Amino acid sequence: MPILNKDMTLCISLSARPSNNGTRFHNHLYEALGLNWIYKAFAPTDLAQAIAGVRGLGIRGCAISMPYKEDVIALVDRMDPSATAIDSVNTIVNDDGVLTAYNTDYSAIAQLIARNALDPASSVLLRGSGGMAKATAAAFRDAGFADVTVVARNEEAGRALAGLYGFGWTADVDGRTADILVNVTPIGMAGGAEADALSFPEMAIQAATAVFDVVALPAETPLVRAGLAAGKTVINGASVATLQALEQFVLYTGIRPTDEQVRAAEEFMRAP
Amino acid sequence: MPILNKDMTLCISLSARPSNNGTRFHNHLYEALGLNWIYKAFAPTDLAQAIAGVRGLGIRGCAISMPYKEDVIALVDRMDPSATAIDSVNTIVNDDGVLTAYNTDYSAIAQLIARNALDPASSVLLRGSGGMAKATAAAFRDAGFADVTVVARNEEAGRALAGLYGFGWTADVDGRTADILVNVTPIGMAGGAEADALSFPEMAIQAATAVFDVVALPAETPLVRAGLAAGKTVINGASVATLQALEQFVLYTGIRPTDEQVRAAEEFMRAP
Repeated sequence: MPILNKDMTLCISLSARPSNNGTRFHNHLYEALGLNWIYKAFAPTDLAQAIAGVRGLGIRGCAISMPYKEDVIALVDRMDPSATAIDSVNTIVNDDGVLTAYNTDYSAIAQLIARNALDPASSVLLRGSGGMAKATAAAFRDAGFADVTVVARNEEAGRALAGLYGFGWTADVDGRTADILVNVTPIGMAGGAEADALSFPEMAIQAATAVFDVVALPAETPLVRAGLAAGKTVINGASVATLQALEQFVLYTGIRPTDEQVRAAEEFMRAP
Repeated sequence: MPILNKDMTLCISLSARPSNNGTRFHNHLYEALGLNWIYKAFAPTDLAQAIAGVRGLGIRGCAISMPYKEDVIALVDRMDPSATAIDSVNTIVNDDGVLTAYNTDYSAIAQLIARNALDPASSVLLRGSGGMAKATAAAFRDAGFADVTVVARNEEAGRALAGLYGFGWTADVDGRTADILVNVTPIGMAGGAEADALSFPEMAIQAATAVFDVVALPAETPLVRAGLAAGKTVINGASVATLQALEQFVLYTGIRPTDEQVRAAEEFMRAP
């Protein structure tokens, strides 16, 4: 790291339980690109006062994580369409005191759907009903997908999410199959109660053409491994996490790093 | 510098025109002592919002410089006697959301008077009438000095300062002498209009036992050089600046570095 100095531009994150990922990813890119910037995660004691601090201290960028993604909407000046699409904010850019809110999770998922040439005519099973499931459902809807079924044990949340986008709902996968399987639940997440569980049955994986796991840690969830083993198009959550962080970096700095620089920052981020 | 991480405790400074001194001094000590802390100077766009940010982001310590030393009083929760003594704040400590204000300029000057065994029975000529002159006058008064004359061209400010502490006032040094000469004007300050000027006449220096220059940059002002050449007790502004920063460090961290560690941080701070 460079010697800290008064002129460094600060970017931060606000989260009840911060990880080191953003701090490592952004600082690595700042150093690689020779930018006089620093990044640090915060667990705020008060969201409104923290956002006042973003304005008052001239903090350039601010990532927003759980549980602040909705509450922060009342505290910003402008909403980018990526944030209005799902009424959820994960990024704030401060232009001379004017705070604009974005959602780079939504943008990242939209980009991955396009990059992997997922066909809007495909049928989709989308497991989950939380905030990230909303971002995912909105990205699929906005990419032209209509045949989407939300799979969620919680009927109220599941029906609400499905209803937002004109999708169907079901409580369980059961014997269902679809062209694209998307997991946006904690199933397969490292350290979780279902870390070793497969979020879709093996039979459904075999019948699909693509699997998309939004779980970022580990990069190889049981669903990702099964999808790769079955020779399917596989999109993993690590790529969502990296892409959304990269989009934040671009929004803050106006600079798009090379793929090689992003790979190096990603490796540094994941290093123990 | 260590690799930045999410758990670092942040301390900052707020100033309309920040220098790099605090950032270099504190970060050097953090590193020398193995503390997972960082320090950065800010030029806030709005003082109240910046202080809200200190609370909301859980920033541990905040140095206050020109022009915020009085305005910030309304924004803190408690005033330490060092700040009430001169109605001026240069340091805020955040204890779980409770902001206590201090003035370490006052404490540093008080310590230097004691360390150099300046005799309270001495006569004193104190040049200046600004905020730092107030801190200096209060420290002399509280150390028991009564025979103090404030020297200030600005009669209103000079009389007001002198009146606060029961001191005399005069517009010019003229032929006056005293045991202790104290300069708290920009005379002799690097980069100023009077950088090469001597703040007291050579004759007064010869007649004095001690000279005290609060100008911190350069460490060797014309007054300091003349005092050293004449074999007087000399206290320079660099020692005030270092001591007040050290007191901030102790207030923030609860740790008192060794003299050697302080010297190293001071050298690092002044290195080009």
